[in-house]
Amino acid sequence: MNTEWVISTLDKLAEFNSGKQGVTRLAYSKEDVEAKEYFISLMKDVGLDVRIDDFGNIIGRLAGKDNTLPVVATGSHLDTVPEGGKYDGMLGVVGGLAAIKKIKDKGEVRHPLELIIFANEESSRFGYATMGSKVIIGKGNKNWLKATDKDGINFAEALEKLNFKLDIKKSIIPPEKFKGFVELHIEQGPVLDREDITIGIVETIAAPTRLKVNIEGQAGHSGATPMVGRRDALVSAAMIVLAVQEIATEHADYGTVGTVGVLNVSPGATNVIPGFVEMGIDIRGVNQESIIEALQELKDAISTIAETQDTPILMSVLASDKPVALNKDIQAIIEKTCEKLNVTYKRMPSGAGHDAMNMASITPSAMIFIPCKEGISHNPEEFAETDDIMQGIDVLTDVLYQMAK
Amino acid sequence: MNTEWVISTLDKLAEFNSGKQGVTRLAYSKEDVEAKEYFISLMKDVGLDVRIDDFGNIIGRLAGKDNTLPVVATGSHLDTVPEGGKYDGMLGVVGGLAAIKKIKDKGEVRHPLELIIFANEESSRFGYATMGSKVIIGKGNKNWLKATDKDGINFAEALEKLNFKLDIKKSIIPPEKFKGFVELHIEQGPVLDREDITIGIVETIAAPTRLKVNIEGQAGHSGATPMVGRRDALVSAAMIVLAVQEIATEHADYGTVGTVGVLNVSPGATNVIPGFVEMGIDIRGVNQESIIEALQELKDAISTIAETQDTPILMSVLASDKPVALNKDIQAIIEKTCEKLNVTYKRMPSGAGHDAMNMASITPSAMIFIPCKEGISHNPEEFAETDDIMQGIDVLTDVLYQMAK
Repeated sequence: MNTEWVISTLDKLAEFNSGKQGVTRLAYSKEDVEAKEYFISLMKDVGLDVRIDDFGNIIGRLAGKDNTLPVVATGSHLDTVPEGGKYDGMLGVVGGLAAIKKIKDKGEVRHPLELIIFANEESSRFGYATMGSKVIIGKGNKNWLKATDKDGINFAEALEKLNFKLDIKKSIIPPEKFKGFVELHIEQGPVLDREDITIGIVETIAAPTRLKVNIEGQAGHSGATPMVGRRDALVSAAMIVLAVQEIATEHADYGTVGTVGVLNVSPGATNVIPGFVEMGIDIRGVNQESIIEALQELKDAISTIAETQDTPILMSVLASDKPVALNKDIQAIIEKTCEKLNVTYKRMPSGAGHDAMNMASITPSAMIFIPCKEGISHNPEEFAETDDIMQGIDVLTDVLYQMAK
Repeated sequence: MNTEWVISTLDKLAEFNSGKQGVTRLAYSKEDVEAKEYFISLMKDVGLDVRIDDFGNIIGRLAGKDNTLPVVATGSHLDTVPEGGKYDGMLGVVGGLAAIKKIKDKGEVRHPLELIIFANEESSRFGYATMGSKVIIGKGNKNWLKATDKDGINFAEALEKLNFKLDIKKSIIPPEKFKGFVELHIEQGPVLDREDITIGIVETIAAPTRLKVNIEGQAGHSGATPMVGRRDALVSAAMIVLAVQEIATEHADYGTVGTVGVLNVSPGATNVIPGFVEMGIDIRGVNQESIIEALQELKDAISTIAETQDTPILMSVLASDKPVALNKDIQAIIEKTCEKLNVTYKRMPSGAGHDAMNMASITPSAMIFIPCKEGISHNPEEFAETDDIMQGIDVLTDVLYQMAK
């Protein structure tokens, strides 16, 4: 499982793709199933015992000397966003298998090791993220079953089609089964790349607050409606976009970020004043107080805009989680490993959510980041250097070994 | 052709519809063809000779006492925007036929009268407006043939399917064939409704300048990309929306208006910073100097935004026409008619473009507006009062009679 194996396996996984650019492999899609079948064969080649739970989480186990001891786990996901990259998720799965193989080759360790491929990490298809790890920790949610994808396929149907189901109790893995969990991942931000550092030791994972904002204006003919008295939903939306930008920038010192990624205009014709706009806003951070304050400021700004522009605005909170602190003991092991291996490192937050954030609620958990070019992720241009990938795997291997030996 | 006939005919036309709300009858669609077949039968019932030109313009002729005299024409269009109303266009067609019938019933006039149903007035399907009247006046354009609708259907194909074609020379009607043209239409703005006036005598038709603006940012993960250094295409777009609003408001005294009706965000996911935004901007007015100044101010604002936000912006002018002054002699006839019939009237500009604006370049042309509720148009809620409709038709009838007698 040398450099060539790692890179060619990442390339091979990228072929399970339904999109034109980059990698499109939505959760529970045909490509997702096929990529997993392919990867299960690789796990079996390494000698792992593979089981698939009711929800589609895949767990490959390498026995230890004492199989009554709790498991040291690693892993990530194989589903992608539409037109995403070939590293997000895949690195932690491919790198996790390479690490376990290396440990196996060193000789048996005391603890069993497990590689987990979490089901449905990306929210792209059904609107909910990190579903597989939520199910494992007992936070599966019946409301998910009502979700539909953009083709109108219901989540319950999508599961059933693959003979999976959401059995909230049955898929739980009891906390005592785990000793700890470590996830290797690309940073998905520009910090390590900008500062030319190889390893990010994640201290905290930001949790997104997602807002849906509906703005009601008054459609009208763009030529025949005087400026005075217009109720243009897009003008209000533009004010909200700039309010998000301004508020988040004021909170930037606390690591809080704010983004409007979705904005749909109705009716969307050049000669019609927008009568309705729907927006999706994402606010995140690692400092809970700063997030709460930013959200309050945004709500106030939105109220003012609704009133002054005479465009009623409905704001609903789709998701709101607290930032998650990762395990300090494993952070210390990662740090020592980096020093031992002479690899540059930096303690940092994770702006993106990950399965590790759920695993942290039941077992000591950690994340190892490597740089990705210009921080670009969820994009066909996502790219990680081979050297960084291999050093990330070396660090992961040593950390898992320290925990499992 | 009493009130009941006019209202029931407008209602009947509204049934040729492919949308859920209001009326959707895009140019050259199945519904458009069927509505026209239906209306041609009504024209024939009145005794008009109907011909259809190569491009799909329909012309119904009532012979005069002296058919060597030029034609007095009226008309409008039967195609609609998606989910539009049942008055825009239809009023001028239904009202035009009612007027010609009334004149016929009075006894023969000297000039022949014609009702023209212009093909493809709305730009909704292929991006070009008032195509039928442009073809008649000799401004057909081969570039149109490359246009495609949102389903990817090419304009040339759409024409061919109906055995129509764009023969730029053959569809021209020589100017000397016309004595004049008068179009009855709803205002599509709130002025007459607000001021409780029945008839608008249009002095000038504003011509739209349409801009396409493409903004290039840098996509990135919404959680993992710090605020500093972001190049968010939607933030730049929001600044442009507010610049359009501000500049147009400053020019409002000259009747200039500015609207961003189209704004598409890519990739359009809650957790991705927008990497690309495409906008459609519409600037119009009746004062050419004010329009030119507003456009220059907007270009300056866009350059500044592109530079300060580090988001390259490409702006292209899709259409840019001059405001059109309508014929003063016919305006005087309309004014006298209103006084004679004891109907309130007001001289005013038209913010929306109309076929009359093209006809004005070859023959003395005029427009008669009636109020529509709150100025709402291009919308399922478009509504005109029956009294206003019938008074509009009475004025049109008398004006056509004065011109043709």
